[in-house]
Amino acid sequence: MASISVLGYGVVGTGIADLINKNKEKFKSITGEDLNISSILVRDKSKHEQKQNYHLITDNIEKVFNSPVDIIVEVMGGIHPAYDYVKKALKLKKHVVTANKDLIAEHGKELLDLAEANGVTLNFEASVGGGIPILKPLIECLSGNEIIGIKAILNGTTNFILSKMYSENASYEDALKLAQELGFAEANPDSDVLGYDAARKLSILSTIAYNKKINWKDLNLNGITSIDKIDFEYAKLNECTIKLLAVSKSQNNKVYGFVQPVMVRLDSYLSKLDDELNGIVIEGDAVGNVFFSGKGAGMLPTASSVFGDITDIIQNKNKKNIKFNADNAFIEKCWCDKSSWLVRIKTEDRLNTICTLSNNFKNCHIYTSNVTQANEVAAVIYEEYESTLKHTLEKFLDIPYINEIKKFMVL
Amino acid sequence: MASISVLGYGVVGTGIADLINKNKEKFKSITGEDLNISSILVRDKSKHEQKQNYHLITDNIEKVFNSPVDIIVEVMGGIHPAYDYVKKALKLKKHVVTANKDLIAEHGKELLDLAEANGVTLNFEASVGGGIPILKPLIECLSGNEIIGIKAILNGTTNFILSKMYSENASYEDALKLAQELGFAEANPDSDVLGYDAARKLSILSTIAYNKKINWKDLNLNGITSIDKIDFEYAKLNECTIKLLAVSKSQNNKVYGFVQPVMVRLDSYLSKLDDELNGIVIEGDAVGNVFFSGKGAGMLPTASSVFGDITDIIQNKNKKNIKFNADNAFIEKCWCDKSSWLVRIKTEDRLNTICTLSNNFKNCHIYTSNVTQANEVAAVIYEEYESTLKHTLEKFLDIPYINEIKKFMVL
Repeated sequence: MASISVLGYGVVGTGIADLINKNKEKFKSITGEDLNISSILVRDKSKHEQKQNYHLITDNIEKVFNSPVDIIVEVMGGIHPAYDYVKKALKLKKHVVTANKDLIAEHGKELLDLAEANGVTLNFEASVGGGIPILKPLIECLSGNEIIGIKAILNGTTNFILSKMYSENASYEDALKLAQELGFAEANPDSDVLGYDAARKLSILSTIAYNKKINWKDLNLNGITSIDKIDFEYAKLNECTIKLLAVSKSQNNKVYGFVQPVMVRLDSYLSKLDDELNGIVIEGDAVGNVFFSGKGAGMLPTASSVFGDITDIIQNKNKKNIKFNADNAFIEKCWCDKSSWLVRIKTEDRLNTICTLSNNFKNCHIYTSNVTQANEVAAVIYEEYESTLKHTLEKFLDIPYINEIKKFMVL
Repeated sequence: MASISVLGYGVVGTGIADLINKNKEKFKSITGEDLNISSILVRDKSKHEQKQNYHLITDNIEKVFNSPVDIIVEVMGGIHPAYDYVKKALKLKKHVVTANKDLIAEHGKELLDLAEANGVTLNFEASVGGGIPILKPLIECLSGNEIIGIKAILNGTTNFILSKMYSENASYEDALKLAQELGFAEANPDSDVLGYDAARKLSILSTIAYNKKINWKDLNLNGITSIDKIDFEYAKLNECTIKLLAVSKSQNNKVYGFVQPVMVRLDSYLSKLDDELNGIVIEGDAVGNVFFSGKGAGMLPTASSVFGDITDIIQNKNKKNIKFNADNAFIEKCWCDKSSWLVRIKTEDRLNTICTLSNNFKNCHIYTSNVTQANEVAAVIYEEYESTLKHTLEKFLDIPYINEIKKFMVL
């Protein structure tokens, strides 16, 4: 008998209870064991009176820990009290499955060590990419590879907003409002639109991929809040769309990593991921590029990954946990490879700005199309290192007639 | 100590030996065990005298079985003698990893049962999709899903040929010749170009996905040998390319399955998979569509999957094998859903053929462009069942002035 306690009975918790009830027979045929929910922890029981599994609901965490439970499924989200509950569960030698990227990004190493010390498993497939199988394939199937790089769309909210800005020519504000109305964005969307959520997921993937500690706050972070309609017009001129990309690369013992809006060519896979879809390209030295995509969030996709994690624990009882390395990676914020860049320079003197651009960047195309605003110069600068570009653009800002510069990588 | 014997030392065997030698330290850090090649079986030792691992090479299978070996890696390909060697290995309680789709498609059930009876594992990730992690994600990560459908490009040779026909306007014969020169196609390309290879892989995926026995020969099979330049011109008119798709679907206790050239819209993921790339869309009832792509063949991509299988065996020593169900699926050759179809009708009487088409298919667009050949009528028929279409087109062939009909699904 595999006895499950679910902490949290919101959207994801409900999906997990549904999948468990639906798949009992299949689970038994795979693992030889019965699958059973022993309790569901909620904050306020009165809110769940109408629900199917009301008899399993408790608001008392001690009751959960004192009941005969093999696996604790944590889908409360956030750090508190999830962190304390998961720690306590592991110390009580309960296996844990979590969908909580904040928890794993902040405390993954400590929790994995604690799991190992107590001879239990901590699985967290749903914490990155929602329903997409990505952590198990990365850790297990690609174990013969040195991972060179990761390029991904990891946040459904921002991808939905940017998709609407592209396809419906919506403003950022209108697209955000629509996302909130449809439940794709929260009332306070900061964690998504500022890129924090994607950065946490990228840090989990990169920590595993490069076997070094990657703190999400050390990545080069830029959200989507300042993206406007004109940016999309330039993207279209360039046969691109704009995506919030989460990218990292390991090279010469350094890790390069960013989460930022990037102009992505329309003929690439990642440009085809619309709305709430997520996608991840993993580059391994043996396998080359492998691409995974699917729904990055939502009730049943997330529950699908959690269910896979539960099956994994019951099937592979003595499996060692993945370890998160304690050694900090040396993280560089400027990108390692030459790239093309789209720059928009707000200026009071277009002619002199064009001269300045041409003098500083030999390989540069200055836009003369009717997208160009009266008080700005826009250009694509080809084959330039980010460090050089950044240094030069910083000097531009000292020029009196140049007021503001916005830049996008073109990938 | 995990001691490996490799059967076969061609391209894939060489890649595996390389990956094992390169990843010994990593393997130890993951599993806690040393990894070691104890022997490599070849047919003719004299051909391998210059190779790095010559001291490990033997042409005597009994030597392999009598040496202390934990895992037999079978990368000889073909049914004989691979089938006998794998059976003997399993009976001797050796774990087996194979990249051999012919073997698994033909004898998968027997071999998996044999492995289970002997308490050992038979892994075969590389048999489908080469380097792409697909079987483990399907079996383990998506275990909470009922799998509804599979849509895939599973053969690199035909995908290379069709890519060249599309992008370089090459004839089938020229593209095949190029593929042979570059090593993407064998001297006898029948198994690839007739669709047998893709059908074997689709049968493995479908057998797992629907938990029913799917014999590859029961699928609706059409190769690419009759695809010509004009087909591609019609594809382009339709904003499509042509791909050899391997598609199956489970519905109302029936399985629908085909491998055939399909007109694939240019805005879809699968149309973006060029040259030797493979890609697989799995549709699960909880997770929705999940897409996996990468290199479907080649030395190191295949070795990457084999290495993952080896790690899996050492890490999860008591894992149960997946079972192949003995119950035959009820397989329907005509596709279950309404679809659009492009038809090309060779005729001696265009006007009457156009009338016949219009009379029989209400929702139909007849091409009048300059692609159209003097002796043919081409049309897209919308929203029609394959069974209805087939029945009607068969009647057309009884009309004296209609000589030949070619049809493509448009997806």
